[in-house]
Amino acid sequence: MKAITKTHMAAGLKMKDIPEPSNLKPTEVLVKVRKVSICGSDVHIYKWDDWAQKHIKPPMTVGHEFAGIVEAVGEAVTMVKVGDYVAAETHIPCQHCYQCKTNRMHICKDMKILGVDIDGAFAEYVRVPEIVLWKVSKEIPEEFASVMEPFGNAVHTALVEDLTGKTVLITGVGPIGAMAIQVAKASGASLVIASEIKPFRKNLAKINGADVVIDPREENLTQKVMKLTGGDGVDILLEMSGSSTALEQGLQSLTRGGSASILGVFSTRIQIPIDELITFKGIKLFGITGRKMFETWRIADQLLKSKKIDLSKVVTHMISFKDWEKGFELMLNGECGKVVMSVE
Amino acid sequence: MKAITKTHMAAGLKMKDIPEPSNLKPTEVLVKVRKVSICGSDVHIYKWDDWAQKHIKPPMTVGHEFAGIVEAVGEAVTMVKVGDYVAAETHIPCQHCYQCKTNRMHICKDMKILGVDIDGAFAEYVRVPEIVLWKVSKEIPEEFASVMEPFGNAVHTALVEDLTGKTVLITGVGPIGAMAIQVAKASGASLVIASEIKPFRKNLAKINGADVVIDPREENLTQKVMKLTGGDGVDILLEMSGSSTALEQGLQSLTRGGSASILGVFSTRIQIPIDELITFKGIKLFGITGRKMFETWRIADQLLKSKKIDLSKVVTHMISFKDWEKGFELMLNGECGKVVMSVE
Amino acid sequence: MKAITKTHMAAGLKMKDIPEPSNLKPTEVLVKVRKVSICGSDVHIYKWDDWAQKHIKPPMTVGHEFAGIVEAVGEAVTMVKVGDYVAAETHIPCQHCYQCKTNRMHICKDMKILGVDIDGAFAEYVRVPEIVLWKVSKEIPEEFASVMEPFGNAVHTALVEDLTGKTVLITGVGPIGAMAIQVAKASGASLVIASEIKPFRKNLAKINGADVVIDPREENLTQKVMKLTGGDGVDILLEMSGSSTALEQGLQSLTRGGSASILGVFSTRIQIPIDELITFKGIKLFGITGRKMFETWRIADQLLKSKKIDLSKVVTHMISFKDWEKGFELMLNGECGKVVMSVE
Amino acid sequence: MKAITKTHMAAGLKMKDIPEPSNLKPTEVLVKVRKVSICGSDVHIYKWDDWAQKHIKPPMTVGHEFAGIVEAVGEAVTMVKVGDYVAAETHIPCQHCYQCKTNRMHICKDMKILGVDIDGAFAEYVRVPEIVLWKVSKEIPEEFASVMEPFGNAVHTALVEDLTGKTVLITGVGPIGAMAIQVAKASGASLVIASEIKPFRKNLAKINGADVVIDPREENLTQKVMKLTGGDGVDILLEMSGSSTALEQGLQSLTRGGSASILGVFSTRIQIPIDELITFKGIKLFGITGRKMFETWRIADQLLKSKKIDLSKVVTHMISFKDWEKGFELMLNGECGKVVMSVE
Repeated sequence: MKAITKTHMAAGLKMKDIPEPSNLKPTEVLVKVRKVSICGSDVHIYKWDDWAQKHIKPPMTVGHEFAGIVEAVGEAVTMVKVGDYVAAETHIPCQHCYQCKTNRMHICKDMKILGVDIDGAFAEYVRVPEIVLWKVSKEIPEEFASVMEPFGNAVHTALVEDLTGKTVLITGVGPIGAMAIQVAKASGASLVIASEIKPFRKNLAKINGADVVIDPREENLTQKVMKLTGGDGVDILLEMSGSSTALEQGLQSLTRGGSASILGVFSTRIQIPIDELITFKGIKLFGITGRKMFETWRIADQLLKSKKIDLSKVVTHMISFKDWEKGFELMLNGECGKVVMSVE
Repeated sequence: MKAITKTHMAAGLKMKDIPEPSNLKPTEVLVKVRKVSICGSDVHIYKWDDWAQKHIKPPMTVGHEFAGIVEAVGEAVTMVKVGDYVAAETHIPCQHCYQCKTNRMHICKDMKILGVDIDGAFAEYVRVPEIVLWKVSKEIPEEFASVMEPFGNAVHTALVEDLTGKTVLITGVGPIGAMAIQVAKASGASLVIASEIKPFRKNLAKINGADVVIDPREENLTQKVMKLTGGDGVDILLEMSGSSTALEQGLQSLTRGGSASILGVFSTRIQIPIDELITFKGIKLFGITGRKMFETWRIADQLLKSKKIDLSKVVTHMISFKDWEKGFELMLNGECGKVVMSVE
Repeated sequence: MKAITKTHMAAGLKMKDIPEPSNLKPTEVLVKVRKVSICGSDVHIYKWDDWAQKHIKPPMTVGHEFAGIVEAVGEAVTMVKVGDYVAAETHIPCQHCYQCKTNRMHICKDMKILGVDIDGAFAEYVRVPEIVLWKVSKEIPEEFASVMEPFGNAVHTALVEDLTGKTVLITGVGPIGAMAIQVAKASGASLVIASEIKPFRKNLAKINGADVVIDPREENLTQKVMKLTGGDGVDILLEMSGSSTALEQGLQSLTRGGSASILGVFSTRIQIPIDELITFKGIKLFGITGRKMFETWRIADQLLKSKKIDLSKVVTHMISFKDWEKGFELMLNGECGKVVMSVE
Repeated sequence: MKAITKTHMAAGLKMKDIPEPSNLKPTEVLVKVRKVSICGSDVHIYKWDDWAQKHIKPPMTVGHEFAGIVEAVGEAVTMVKVGDYVAAETHIPCQHCYQCKTNRMHICKDMKILGVDIDGAFAEYVRVPEIVLWKVSKEIPEEFASVMEPFGNAVHTALVEDLTGKTVLITGVGPIGAMAIQVAKASGASLVIASEIKPFRKNLAKINGADVVIDPREENLTQKVMKLTGGDGVDILLEMSGSSTALEQGLQSLTRGGSASILGVFSTRIQIPIDELITFKGIKLFGITGRKMFETWRIADQLLKSKKIDLSKVVTHMISFKDWEKGFELMLNGECGKVVMSVE
């Protein structure tokens, strides 16, 4: 089968013909891949940066965002059957650590990552343990099912608090930030402010429904937020930029007693005036990773099925699997939302 | 000043000239009334039914839903100032019982009710303690500010759980049920089903955005709900009818682990198969009264200010204060949503 | 192997020699049973009452409370290994319904019950799916591990709210009620009141640490609770009697805004003045079944391991497996807490 | 009356004769002070450090922890009456900002502090607004009522999560840390580990019931915690030291998905590897200030009244008001828990 693989410990990827996965273990499932989408971490692997060099052991198939149809199941599989339309959690839990046994599989102590620790989904077929599969509602198009994994990040981050009648600041409007804008609006937020510096992404914020888009290099973010909220600050901060400046400005923009959900990756130690910005203000801060398995998926599925969320505003490019190099170019260039590829 | 009063222990009300309230206590506020709206309990007082006979001591001014402008304040008042645009909580808390001291004033042990225990708001001026006043955002029209009290009931009932991506059944679509439909939709509910038997109210449900309206006398409510939810049942029941049949069918329609918020008044003991419908299913049931003071009001204000909710679909009639008898006729007849009167 | 079995559709049980379970499926586990304990539902099966006639299909092995050592595992088992010390959830979840996929396996839509729907644990060996097993901390004696299932009911019911500094009323002091008294005390409840009418159980309440034990036939329960709580009523009701009188008195004894957890089985429709006792008071009512898998088990394990709870005050009898008829006699007679049998 | 006052902008305090407070405003209360206790911030004022120079405007009476008897009330006061036994919140809320109107008075936007922004309680009489008073249960001795304010900090910090069956690490065992140890134990924590470097405080930790006391200069804190928790880390971190090393080690010691409550004041920006210690682990972090008004006070009162907590293990010194200089010496020296002074 065709697969996009990391063949050597160097920059680049290669589309190759490799054997289909075989010999399913009792709880494994073989999925015929229909759509895949490119994540920022796939780009790290492509570029062979520090993170990639530490985590990836070539040769291997990359990619983890996908949607497909169950092709075959191991003898003990009960959660899905052949023909089911599925997407998948990319966090593969051990199912027996403290976290897994207490309904927190998304922060499993011994987690494996699809397309990082084991062969990924940028291929005609992918083999996964049944526990990671989510049966997608048939009303959801395949190209949206493929991006349910990052969409789940947006849902997980945004819904730490009930947003009805709340004011929200989102710092950083990549694809997940853009989806979070839609989630906040659909969930009843009364005001959604986005902070972003790149022109393409400022536009993405507007298209996805932000009430106000602020460029923190052109305006004082905190002052503007205070003005927009009658001097109170926002109830909720969704930090999705990984910029320590954004985090600090975001915390300054929070109302006393407000909540901050942190999804952004900072890749370094951050400095923070904790007394003034967190303790004395009674702030709640939530570190977010992955998606609750599968409460988040259920909500994501319902939002897509009911068309409360329209991911066509985030999926900016749909290409063929064979044109994968163009997809990575788009991602490297940054002038895109999600890039979805058809594997047919 | 003009006021609608109960003059005798008998059916009916009378518009009379009475003295304006004077001699404000240190923490009292005099409000110039601009708009008032009629509640079902005002109709009980009009009809002089059992409940009214037990609670009302004529002569007194009735009415409790209103919006107006602060005209004068007692010497110790700090929460509002002359000229403020206000609506009011009708539950007057003692401020020192266990519930009041622990941020649950809406279920105060020694609560007084405006227009029931003390003179009400169907008058040119009303005197209230400062603690009950809510400063209304200037973007909200007076006729919507007047109905913020029942709208708060809808918000309080609907938001016991985060509704994003959840399925909701609302039994009983009077004005509060209709507002709850809008709240649920605005809060991200993926499916909102309404159950109602009266034609006017079935139409009200549709106008306010219910995805499906079921007449439980024409269809089997539980079977229909199960079909609409893939056999799972709804996540949330909002009981607003006060019908024990509706409650039982509603609980049957709930998914295992679901939540039921009960606002409907049953006026009698109910019978319920508690093992089967609550215990074994792990249901959470919430009795709802009043509005959280003032978390609920804040959310209600934000929803109206941001136009996430459009109360023009519920306020079906706007009349002049002098035509109050027509307003009560509409309410007695039942072919209306909220009736708002201009006091000018 | 020796096993206690229901052989015919009639009252009674029989200890018989039957073959050991064999041919483990890939995700099944064979446990060598060390201790078992008798549940009220085992007594229903013994007596062959209505419930038993509806649910039990002889011939089958009964019993579901047990502790033992893993003897063998299916080829795909990852959660336990041979030699592990285990107890087990008796609710066997399907793992793929809406509830199971959203971390609510204890209210699975297609649940099977050990010793009811499949062969049980009153035997030298029991075969269970790996998903139900809990690895017991080695510090916990086997006789307490065997009763972790009902102890989990007590933990699940008691901990619906944080009990620190709260006042608690427990209606019905069978073994689970007695354990709930200990849980409430260990969790920081400032006052634990028990209501019970049977002399043996009133004594059990005292031994397990109730601050006050009330016999509702000798004293007015609600009046006494009001007196003990300065007129406020208790914060929390744990209903464990299945008596509708107890439920109504319990709800009357709750403070406004309080919480009621219902574990008691009423076996009939109940009548309740819902306006007065639930809605107008803003009561939260929680139907409780099973144990959260496995948050409840983790807390139960930690409480036993740290000796915050002493189950020797509830396990009133320890006998040999061969004396099982004496165990059932004790249970039928009612003058006991938990009866544990050694299977060796 | 006698009062301890800051007379000049320099180090030191003076006991002086000053006039009793008079001319109560309508909602003010005069309290005859019975017991006072010394807080670390009183010592800052004594030393006239940077913080004090920025916040204190001499001449003024200092002190804020006290218990006493209501001596007189303003004309509009309804919450207390003459003769009531009271302690007081030292955070004086405005009662009309967003936070105050939504039941978060403890993080009021325009808060005043007793003994900092207005005359304090180290005097024979203190004048306070009625809103800050808590009626103390008569079973609680005055010397414990006086320290209910810092005890409330311990309760507020410790009870962010339900602690039953949870493992807890407390970094920093001053008087509040010591009280938090007791709260955690009384609330059902299965393991309470304290980290402290000063000998007096290590002993205080033991006396107050810590299961394990670790000196992080003698042992690797994180490694020891991991060992004590079977490699999982603790469920809860209560940071009470204001040391960034302690915070970082504490976060390293937390289990994935755990919660950190931060009460410690760092007085500087902190550096933190946020990806690794918060985001990827799914940590919840709560900034804590003050006490919930008055949920925290209610719990504190119940814990003291029921003797679940014994503050005699924290109140190490009781002296006469006239010996106040000895009290400050003890505090400067650091070899004490709480120092309570009798004002008679």
